[in-house]
Amino acid sequence: YLKAKNGKAWLVPKFLNALFRGIGQATFANNPFSGILIFTGIVWHSLMLGWIQLLAGTTAIITALLINVNPALITSGSISFNSILLATVTTSICDSNPLFGVPVGSKFLMFIIVGSSLSVFITDALSNISNSFKPSIPILSIPFHILAVIIMTGLRITVSEITEEENSDSRHALVAATNQLDGSVFNETTSLPKTEDWITEYIDLNPSFYSYETLQNSLMAVILSGGQVFGINDLFSSLLVYAGLMMYSPILTFMCLLGATTATLFGLFISPFPNVTVFDGIWGFNGLLSCGAIGLFYVFRFQSVIHGIASVCFTAFLQLSLSNSFQQTKVPVLAFPFLISTIIFVCGLTYGQKLVRVPKITFPE
Amino acid sequence: YLKAKNGKAWLVPKFLNALFRGIGQATFANNPFSGILIFTGIVWHSLMLGWIQLLAGTTAIITALLINVNPALITSGSISFNSILLATVTTSICDSNPLFGVPVGSKFLMFIIVGSSLSVFITDALSNISNSFKPSIPILSIPFHILAVIIMTGLRITVSEITEEENSDSRHALVAATNQLDGSVFNETTSLPKTEDWITEYIDLNPSFYSYETLQNSLMAVILSGGQVFGINDLFSSLLVYAGLMMYSPILTFMCLLGATTATLFGLFISPFPNVTVFDGIWGFNGLLSCGAIGLFYVFRFQSVIHGIASVCFTAFLQLSLSNSFQQTKVPVLAFPFLISTIIFVCGLTYGQKLVRVPKITFPE
Amino acid sequence: YLKAKNGKAWLVPKFLNALFRGIGQATFANNPFSGILIFTGIVWHSLMLGWIQLLAGTTAIITALLINVNPALITSGSISFNSILLATVTTSICDSNPLFGVPVGSKFLMFIIVGSSLSVFITDALSNISNSFKPSIPILSIPFHILAVIIMTGLRITVSEITEEENSDSRHALVAATNQLDGSVFNETTSLPKTEDWITEYIDLNPSFYSYETLQNSLMAVILSGGQVFGINDLFSSLLVYAGLMMYSPILTFMCLLGATTATLFGLFISPFPNVTVFDGIWGFNGLLSCGAIGLFYVFRFQSVIHGIASVCFTAFLQLSLSNSFQQTKVPVLAFPFLISTIIFVCGLTYGQKLVRVPKITFPE
Repeated sequence: YLKAKNGKAWLVPKFLNALFRGIGQATFANNPFSGILIFTGIVWHSLMLGWIQLLAGTTAIITALLINVNPALITSGSISFNSILLATVTTSICDSNPLFGVPVGSKFLMFIIVGSSLSVFITDALSNISNSFKPSIPILSIPFHILAVIIMTGLRITVSEITEEENSDSRHALVAATNQLDGSVFNETTSLPKTEDWITEYIDLNPSFYSYETLQNSLMAVILSGGQVFGINDLFSSLLVYAGLMMYSPILTFMCLLGATTATLFGLFISPFPNVTVFDGIWGFNGLLSCGAIGLFYVFRFQSVIHGIASVCFTAFLQLSLSNSFQQTKVPVLAFPFLISTIIFVCGLTYGQKLVRVPKITFPE
Repeated sequence: YLKAKNGKAWLVPKFLNALFRGIGQATFANNPFSGILIFTGIVWHSLMLGWIQLLAGTTAIITALLINVNPALITSGSISFNSILLATVTTSICDSNPLFGVPVGSKFLMFIIVGSSLSVFITDALSNISNSFKPSIPILSIPFHILAVIIMTGLRITVSEITEEENSDSRHALVAATNQLDGSVFNETTSLPKTEDWITEYIDLNPSFYSYETLQNSLMAVILSGGQVFGINDLFSSLLVYAGLMMYSPILTFMCLLGATTATLFGLFISPFPNVTVFDGIWGFNGLLSCGAIGLFYVFRFQSVIHGIASVCFTAFLQLSLSNSFQQTKVPVLAFPFLISTIIFVCGLTYGQKLVRVPKITFPE
Repeated sequence: YLKAKNGKAWLVPKFLNALFRGIGQATFANNPFSGILIFTGIVWHSLMLGWIQLLAGTTAIITALLINVNPALITSGSISFNSILLATVTTSICDSNPLFGVPVGSKFLMFIIVGSSLSVFITDALSNISNSFKPSIPILSIPFHILAVIIMTGLRITVSEITEEENSDSRHALVAATNQLDGSVFNETTSLPKTEDWITEYIDLNPSFYSYETLQNSLMAVILSGGQVFGINDLFSSLLVYAGLMMYSPILTFMCLLGATTATLFGLFISPFPNVTVFDGIWGFNGLLSCGAIGLFYVFRFQSVIHGIASVCFTAFLQLSLSNSFQQTKVPVLAFPFLISTIIFVCGLTYGQKLVRVPKITFPE
């Protein structure tokens, strides 16, 4: 609709459109109004996060205009969404978690700005590479993940003031980094117990597996998964994320909820870590994204629901395995399980007999 | 031949055909009778392994039918072969090696069943991705390798009851995991000596490099390589694997033996580890697979023999390098060296002037 | 020009042409005379390096003739350049750095010869794979990097006589490996100070950030970057590398200098390590290669200069992040940052509106 207008007066709405679509894209909701709702949720949680998001999004759009990226990519928010995710997640991890050791300062901002700018180049480059595959591979948030790992490692090295003793605390630090913002909801157990304790705790928790409390916590986890996409652990923000998603497409919302629920249950069952990471929605949000992606790329049928659940299953296994490997790098797992799982499932299953890939991706309805 | 029959009465033979072809496929022998011979060899070694193989194969075939995979893939055993490998190798490593710390229990079986089921999705997905490359990249046992690493790491975390002290034993555990079942043949040295001892031992072994004993052990290693494809260290089982291969194609058997021999000699020469891993066929089986794959994909000529040897050479270097990196993850190297080497060699060399890629892969004759 | 001649008498010049083009290719200078200049620079630094280069180059060309590689690839030096790089860099790291623990002996030479021979197979294979992408992905020095990591790890395991105590010195060893040959120019600080000292030193150095000394050192770093492409830290050799580059193409030289300068400044700003690695040209040479590749693949315009700088920027971030990860493997970072950055930038940006990819790569003029 906005495409038709070309006057100067439309520059600002066009810009805002690109910006908020970028925010919405993080949960597949390519719609400026969904973006505004989600943005409200984030500002509600932390005003600073909102400012940094705007800064990153603006940097990305300006860079994109400078290097003449395909305008359709800018308008749809595909360009800005990676830099917005980068800024939000990096900030919320560094900000909330003093043990990660990176203060939010001027050097931090410089990293974010350079990173946002680079994400445009990388998104542009990857979207061209993906076209040489038939069927084309979705880029999803690959640029975000590449840059997030590089920038967070870089920040740790350059900015942090870690002493040698703190290095031995790395295990402790990681757990805190994984359970990013869990202070608000679950403030009883932040420290990862030793292995022997795990077993005990695992046994302790198991009896209550079917208890009312577990059910309540799991429900909470499913809802919190919405916010965790942006690295935010906040009930109200998560509800607004779901509201934004609902406005875009109810079917997508159903798939996302299904994914979050399956992943949470899987997490409860196979995770040896204290269930606090599960109840925080860390497991749920990867499932949410995996299942949502299947819902987005395929026509909604019974067959696609089965594929969605299989994808979530694989995501959960990946998360179990990766969270172990990432302990060494001290960077959280982010949405890597979602990324790997979805690339395999979405690229591959297009020839399926009962699965039809959506030719042009709009909302499922 | 079985394709023509469509009656209900043929369901069972069809199913068995798919199952045993899957077992044969692990050594490229796409033939139900080869599969039966190899299966006999495995049951001979351990009855439980046989049951788990059947379980995994059945799970895979049922899943494949449920999601409507291309029936040709099911009949040729391509679908079931990854899940069968997964089940066999994981079980034989976990079962034989108490230091790996994973008992074969109900949770273990659950992992195997879910893994077998997922392997179908992943095989299906990857076979579609590979079609976007020209010439298409063979999938080989990529799904098996992805899932094996994920599941074995996952099992360690979830099921194992390792205490902190045992972690310091990790080095010990790894060696044992690598030398999986060496108890039967070489029961004198299972523990990895310290570095200084290596040197001594290396010097000690070197004088006997051309001795009769080394020759005998190397010959044994070449034969044992056959069984090691399934993670089994058993002379009779290995002979049955070769017999199954011979029934499928003598040329392929020649290439496989050539690969196993070259890799074993290479291993003796460059491996700093005590030669016990070489004599167990751990080095030989990667060479066997690499050279066999060249034999399978290319018309048999002098040129393809040279390529086969070069491929084995690269495989051996990779094994030396990877076995070092894998020590940290505590997962054995599996057939990763074969996988990387073969993908590079098979994909790439199709334009060769004197090498002709077999247009449709049947047996070489 | 040499193509036209077919007599036997021309075999030697043809061979030398292929050999020296191979040496020139390492800095994109596909020209035998540039190759001779650069070769002179290397022999100046160390006669042995020269011999090993010739050995590796000859092995590669002979292997290529044996397996009937496309003759155009041989003549252009694309085949020999990876094996030459492999030999030069491995030797200069092992030779100059006793702490790396690998003496240059007969076993070392065997590894180099087998490696050079394998690099031909891998180059041939990868160049075929890259053709299945549209636009095709440049292979650059991927074969060199694969083999360098494998061979250097392998050498460490097989040849080295490291005792357990030395393992605890690994950190020390790595730094020395990174600052390979810094003895000649900066002999005051070879040991990496502890983290606390870094901070102090960082603060200490910062005041002098704009000082005359820093400027002088940075200029030196830009020049030294030329030699570091071959792992050589020598002023005169580096000048000869630039001279060879200048003879091939002034525009390429400009892009390379621009890249080296940007990367050095970036390195000064974001590297927490003592600036000695920056002043040695370790940061500069990755930037040099990244920017040079952009200069080679795209028509020279203002837009391509911007892309070059962005690519260097990304390279520097990657270097910061990777140098941390590589500490564990004890292998230096080599030109991995350049490799990853260039593949992303060169593959991807071909659809750019104002960037035109050079259809056939000759020299930019």
